[in-house]
Amino acid sequence: MNIILLSGGSGKRLWPLSNDIRSKQFIKIFKTKDGQYESMVQRVYRQILDADPEATVTIATSRTQVSSIHNQLGDKVGISVEPCRKDTFPAIALATAYLHDVQGIPGDETVVVCPVDPYVEQDYFEAIKNLSAQAAKGTANLVLMGIEPTYPSEKYGYIIPENDSAVSPVSTFKEKPDMETAREYIRQGALWNGGVFAYKLDYVLDKAHQLMDFTDYKDLFAKYETLDKISFDYAVVEKEPAIEVTRFSGQWKDLGTWNTLTEAMEDSSIGNAIMDESCANVHVINDLDVPVLAMGLRDVVISASPEGILVSDKGQSSYIKPFVDKIDQRIMFAEKSWGNFRVLDVEEESITMKVTLNAGHGMNYHSHKNRDEVWHVISGKGRAVVDGLNQEIEAGHVITMKAGCRHTVIAETELKLIEVQLGRDISVHDKEKHVLG
Amino acid sequence: MNIILLSGGSGKRLWPLSNDIRSKQFIKIFKTKDGQYESMVQRVYRQILDADPEATVTIATSRTQVSSIHNQLGDKVGISVEPCRKDTFPAIALATAYLHDVQGIPGDETVVVCPVDPYVEQDYFEAIKNLSAQAAKGTANLVLMGIEPTYPSEKYGYIIPENDSAVSPVSTFKEKPDMETAREYIRQGALWNGGVFAYKLDYVLDKAHQLMDFTDYKDLFAKYETLDKISFDYAVVEKEPAIEVTRFSGQWKDLGTWNTLTEAMEDSSIGNAIMDESCANVHVINDLDVPVLAMGLRDVVISASPEGILVSDKGQSSYIKPFVDKIDQRIMFAEKSWGNFRVLDVEEESITMKVTLNAGHGMNYHSHKNRDEVWHVISGKGRAVVDGLNQEIEAGHVITMKAGCRHTVIAETELKLIEVQLGRDISVHDKEKHVLG
Repeated sequence: MNIILLSGGSGKRLWPLSNDIRSKQFIKIFKTKDGQYESMVQRVYRQILDADPEATVTIATSRTQVSSIHNQLGDKVGISVEPCRKDTFPAIALATAYLHDVQGIPGDETVVVCPVDPYVEQDYFEAIKNLSAQAAKGTANLVLMGIEPTYPSEKYGYIIPENDSAVSPVSTFKEKPDMETAREYIRQGALWNGGVFAYKLDYVLDKAHQLMDFTDYKDLFAKYETLDKISFDYAVVEKEPAIEVTRFSGQWKDLGTWNTLTEAMEDSSIGNAIMDESCANVHVINDLDVPVLAMGLRDVVISASPEGILVSDKGQSSYIKPFVDKIDQRIMFAEKSWGNFRVLDVEEESITMKVTLNAGHGMNYHSHKNRDEVWHVISGKGRAVVDGLNQEIEAGHVITMKAGCRHTVIAETELKLIEVQLGRDISVHDKEKHVLG
Repeated sequence: MNIILLSGGSGKRLWPLSNDIRSKQFIKIFKTKDGQYESMVQRVYRQILDADPEATVTIATSRTQVSSIHNQLGDKVGISVEPCRKDTFPAIALATAYLHDVQGIPGDETVVVCPVDPYVEQDYFEAIKNLSAQAAKGTANLVLMGIEPTYPSEKYGYIIPENDSAVSPVSTFKEKPDMETAREYIRQGALWNGGVFAYKLDYVLDKAHQLMDFTDYKDLFAKYETLDKISFDYAVVEKEPAIEVTRFSGQWKDLGTWNTLTEAMEDSSIGNAIMDESCANVHVINDLDVPVLAMGLRDVVISASPEGILVSDKGQSSYIKPFVDKIDQRIMFAEKSWGNFRVLDVEEESITMKVTLNAGHGMNYHSHKNRDEVWHVISGKGRAVVDGLNQEIEAGHVITMKAGCRHTVIAETELKLIEVQLGRDISVHDKEKHVLG
């Protein structure tokens, strides 16, 4: 099975655990059997490989998520990087071209596209295998998954099937309705459109060539910024007469707000949290080292991270976005392909951060124009390269780097260091990459 | 006027802004005319000097508060340090001996004792001046302030005066009553006992010599740990027939819980806080640099500091103590006589902190047995002394100190540095002080 996971979103609705560079799908919030926590993207990836160990998984996403994906899923997963955001048609076309030209998937194989963020069980992935098998039959150009509605939702588009069999031609599509109309659709046997569909690779590649002028994946990637923003629904689905829908009646949750996300939490708290016995329906997600104490609250979610603290009535939490849009907060925590960093202190002309490198990983060899840096290794072993000179390093070592000096550190074991940056106009953009000789 | 301010309390009720070494009276929460914030102790000290610029103010307190007092009030205020906590009679006796033997106050001068933490206006200190003047007349050995009750409180002891004149002999004292009894007391003209009283210095000194075996202040200080715990009420007030009470009818609030404290706040938030329009009667006190976002809450107090985060229904917040007792949290922030420090990161074998020294101040010259330290100056100028060697320092300088090495830093301007401590068993107790040659 070839599967493209669409991983988008700025993650503002789940602030402060998500931010501009960490979308909600990377928050480790779901308890696994061994008592660890995994993120949405880790959960979905694990579930896909459980359903089909041979699956080719490609994540279609923006550049900002690449580090987090490698950090959480390792290097085996395919990533189709969108140079910029251009809506779903260009994104799916690019990922499909990536599958064909980079991964070498033949044009007659089927591809399933689905969002990275539904909260589902294993039966969902069995349904996706069926979807893929149905597309392989070639009785339609597109096969959609229709989710059996559990309530008259105003949040989803609806698919009206021609009949109520397991696989049916699609009669028509309906936009997000009001609640009364939703009730009427459901009486007519309508299904939710969860944005999950399968096709033969060549079908979308042909559509792409019809609508956009490009030769291959590399060329499409290079031209990506010039493409029109257009949705896959508008460009393809609404114009395609040969569409089928298969039914799915298992659990399917959209965990887009704190309210819905906390419903999927196994325990009422993650991290250092204390609640008194008068708290009712309270969830605490605490990413900080210090305790959160909750007393006498009802229907409240508390979430704390290095970026900030949210305390919200659960229902009200769905209106968070405009407030977060107004917060102009420096990124205080980020996952990188080599590990992560956390900002500890910000002053006018200095920033102090803790940097953790995973064993065997290293940063890019780089330099800064406008700041000096000092690394103080606090644990682990590895080596630093400073202006071409190699140096074994371990806890206690202090490495000073003047502005302009090229440097990197490569971890042998997990390695932690305190980095003090000093200078005027310290900025993440002040970074030049070099080739390590 | 000679005034002794009793400054006690572990501050657990106002966690996380107060902690074992920072009592509630040091939290900067009250807005001044110039838009700055001052603490309870700063407010009271300022109010006393406004009422009587010549006042001799002595704070009776424990060793742990000395740094905070000097940091917030400067070096002019007198401090009577209790070597350990022994209840109010030994504390008042020690402070009275301190006034006599250290400050040289004659035995026939009057002394006023009052708690450091009532939230009052200027008229309270005018009343204290009257109290002092009344004690000077010598018509009674003790003159108490009786506060006119505004409601039948179960939290206070009551004073029943013989008559309703401005100054009256005391008929009797009553313990904290239940509400019905409190109503009855108030019908009888009873007054709250706010723990404010005045006496001639020799009176308490004589009582102290009768009840405890000591020669002078130094001797009492040396013997302090051997003294019995006994309250001033029990040892003196209840046995004294010649007591008067003066009436005070102005504002007098006991800000001992988050609920009462937030009532005294001028604005609904201090620090980086955002509230949506559906919040009602919500207060945010945020001591962190990152924002707190509150949505859809009612009657809630949110308080965040480097020690932790409290989110509590206001009424429920008065039951906080047992929960905070159970929190085993490292001190993350402290005021020192020379400035302050804040812990930024804690790892198994390292601690990283930011140290701020006020201009003209320096730490003790000291060494540690079990940890190496590195200072990275991030702003300001001064000098470091390391094993006797002086060194001018400024932003960018890195000073490394091995375990055993003696060191200090003295700030010329305000000076900030990042300190990385490295070693096994890092402890605040691993500190040896030395004389700077």
